[in-house]
Amino acid sequence: MSALLFVNAEQVVTCAGAGRGRRGVEMADAGVRSGVGVAVTSGAIAAVDSVAELRGRFPDAREIDCGRGVLTPGLVDSHTHGVFGRPRADEQEMRAAGLDYMEIARRGGGIHASVRDLRATDEERLFALTLVRLRRLASYGTTTVEVKSGYGLTLDDELKALRVIARAARELPLRLVPTFLGAHEIPLEHRESAASRRAYVELIVNEMIPAVAAARLATFADVFCETGVYTVEESRTILDAARGSGLGLKLHADELTSSGGAELAASIRATSADHLAAVSDAGIAALAAGSTVATLLPGTMLFLGKPKQAPARRFIEAGVPVALATDFNPGTSPTQNLALILTLGVSQLRLSVSEAVVAATVNGAAALGLAGEIGQIAPGYSADLALFDIRDVRELPYWYGDNRCVATFVRGKPCYTSNLGVS
Amino acid sequence: MSALLFVNAEQVVTCAGAGRGRRGVEMADAGVRSGVGVAVTSGAIAAVDSVAELRGRFPDAREIDCGRGVLTPGLVDSHTHGVFGRPRADEQEMRAAGLDYMEIARRGGGIHASVRDLRATDEERLFALTLVRLRRLASYGTTTVEVKSGYGLTLDDELKALRVIARAARELPLRLVPTFLGAHEIPLEHRESAASRRAYVELIVNEMIPAVAAARLATFADVFCETGVYTVEESRTILDAARGSGLGLKLHADELTSSGGAELAASIRATSADHLAAVSDAGIAALAAGSTVATLLPGTMLFLGKPKQAPARRFIEAGVPVALATDFNPGTSPTQNLALILTLGVSQLRLSVSEAVVAATVNGAAALGLAGEIGQIAPGYSADLALFDIRDVRELPYWYGDNRCVATFVRGKPCYTSNLGVS
Repeated sequence: MSALLFVNAEQVVTCAGAGRGRRGVEMADAGVRSGVGVAVTSGAIAAVDSVAELRGRFPDAREIDCGRGVLTPGLVDSHTHGVFGRPRADEQEMRAAGLDYMEIARRGGGIHASVRDLRATDEERLFALTLVRLRRLASYGTTTVEVKSGYGLTLDDELKALRVIARAARELPLRLVPTFLGAHEIPLEHRESAASRRAYVELIVNEMIPAVAAARLATFADVFCETGVYTVEESRTILDAARGSGLGLKLHADELTSSGGAELAASIRATSADHLAAVSDAGIAALAAGSTVATLLPGTMLFLGKPKQAPARRFIEAGVPVALATDFNPGTSPTQNLALILTLGVSQLRLSVSEAVVAATVNGAAALGLAGEIGQIAPGYSADLALFDIRDVRELPYWYGDNRCVATFVRGKPCYTSNLGVS
Repeated sequence: MSALLFVNAEQVVTCAGAGRGRRGVEMADAGVRSGVGVAVTSGAIAAVDSVAELRGRFPDAREIDCGRGVLTPGLVDSHTHGVFGRPRADEQEMRAAGLDYMEIARRGGGIHASVRDLRATDEERLFALTLVRLRRLASYGTTTVEVKSGYGLTLDDELKALRVIARAARELPLRLVPTFLGAHEIPLEHRESAASRRAYVELIVNEMIPAVAAARLATFADVFCETGVYTVEESRTILDAARGSGLGLKLHADELTSSGGAELAASIRATSADHLAAVSDAGIAALAAGSTVATLLPGTMLFLGKPKQAPARRFIEAGVPVALATDFNPGTSPTQNLALILTLGVSQLRLSVSEAVVAATVNGAAALGLAGEIGQIAPGYSADLALFDIRDVRELPYWYGDNRCVATFVRGKPCYTSNLGVS
């Protein structure tokens, strides 16, 4: 298998940084290099060096002309709910008219609407919908996507969603990371009493998690820990069981109210704590003392019309690694455009461009337990790459709402190619 | 010339509404119809009726299959600064670090940076850049675009920008509306004294406006009326002269501070007053008593990271017609995606989907003095149309940051076609 050389990039954004912080790459330095090419052998980055040097070292390499575009690590979208049936476009208008998330949920909308819908949608149809949506997501430069179940909320329906993810992972050149989110909501049929609610938690712990783990259908388990959804204690019970079954841990924490989610995530050493718009000072301190990645989802707050965003700068100042993701889902963040999330990272969360890019590559990888494999253009890393039709990485969050991605590669093989090419 | 029939649309969003308000179409009703087709003859809408009826009436018509997509009037982007040289991606990061608009301007960034750049860019290069950018803008479903000069600020450079717009209008199938914005900033070379500043206003009034009008290079004149830029009195002087030369009037009003811009726009019967995030109660009342369209630009406030947005609901409640536009420009709103602006219209400005769609069609047309020609799918209107790969118009603002447009038509002729088609 001959080498590949990526040549004629205006910039190669290595995300390998110049220095390394306590937990990996320094967010402030995305390692932007000019005048270099990238050599790939056997699907992995072999070298980042001057093109002349690389040509000497890999004389038989096939060359890919980057057309003066910007080459980055393939973007990592570490938080999506990408398996669902119908879009819930009606709720956006209900919110505009003044109804809040909890109110829409109480009226049978929100997550419950997608649960009814997913249960009624057959696996084949769900697979077809998911494939189209993940392909669209990939067109924005994303090469790794975490996808959660969580609209099934029965053993069979959760397994159905996870099988759809597994099948999509075989079908698509994308790298998919499946997460079991049976604890996305308390199903309506388990809300009559405390006992009925307890029975659902027990179902998750005693049946769903063992079944998911046995079938190897998920890498992570996640819980929506929030006032009105799962309590901190329930979340701990579920995630303890998940760890016992060999799953990695994630947590929807402190999205709308500060309920101790960040503290829980830190105490159980979750790989990531996600949302965090309402995190408390104690929550920030707990994450700073631990090893959990803070995954921020500014698109969700934008789409919900909420003025409040997660305190990204405070996380960074405290040394907490910050990741950015789309939260792609049918209710509160129907976007597949991770570059737009970078825009919000800069404009709403006050990240620098380097910080935003690192958040969607290196730290997205860390949020999926893949920090040693993807997210950097550095020797030994997988050749997961994205090429953008821009001349400077700062244009990536700048042309907001647009798609400047022209091609992506996973393990050195083409994943997405636009019809446009580099202009 | 045979008729065209648009058939098999899941919805035809006529924007002709059910009722008509004091100043045209009721914003609350976008006139969404199912089970109908659209007949086009000689580039104009001939009828909106059942497909069977239309086939009977136009037996020789060529049919265009809308593939169960949603057909709307071509979107109208009534406020852009689409002729510029370099992107100013560096300023986004400066803002994230805490520098505000005025501070960046004082450091020689902001509009002045684009002025230096446009002056140094030859007309051919400027034309090439503009063509690429307007084509990209058109790919989001926009068929009419207002484009302002305003980065020249000398007679020659303003004419250069306006010639680029005129040439783009001949080259592209888009409908372009040129606006002279010589009063976009006080040029640096006119800032030494009050006399020097006065001299620039006189240059605009005595030389630029007559030259622009004589060459028929603009439909409108516009002024950036803002604390630190043009005063209300200067704005009035310039726009009075513009009216005298036969130009329509627009005004950048009350974007960052409340300086009486809306009141001025109403008193001179400007076609539109734009921005308005800082409009006063008196300004709203003045617009309500007059005939000026309030053009809101929520993308700009988002990109600038400002929590404040224009009080759209108060305008609507007061009976002021509201338009939405991108404000596409290199400093404060580098987006070409008008559908994303609809998302912000719903999520940030609390418009209903109907209101947002009417704002980007009917009211955008009114903001360009074209309310009788474009912006509606109704008999007699130009066949300027956009086809989206969605099943319900509510999905247009919903899939935020994405592009669901598959084709547009201007005067019944293809303007933009995606490679994707309706899925």
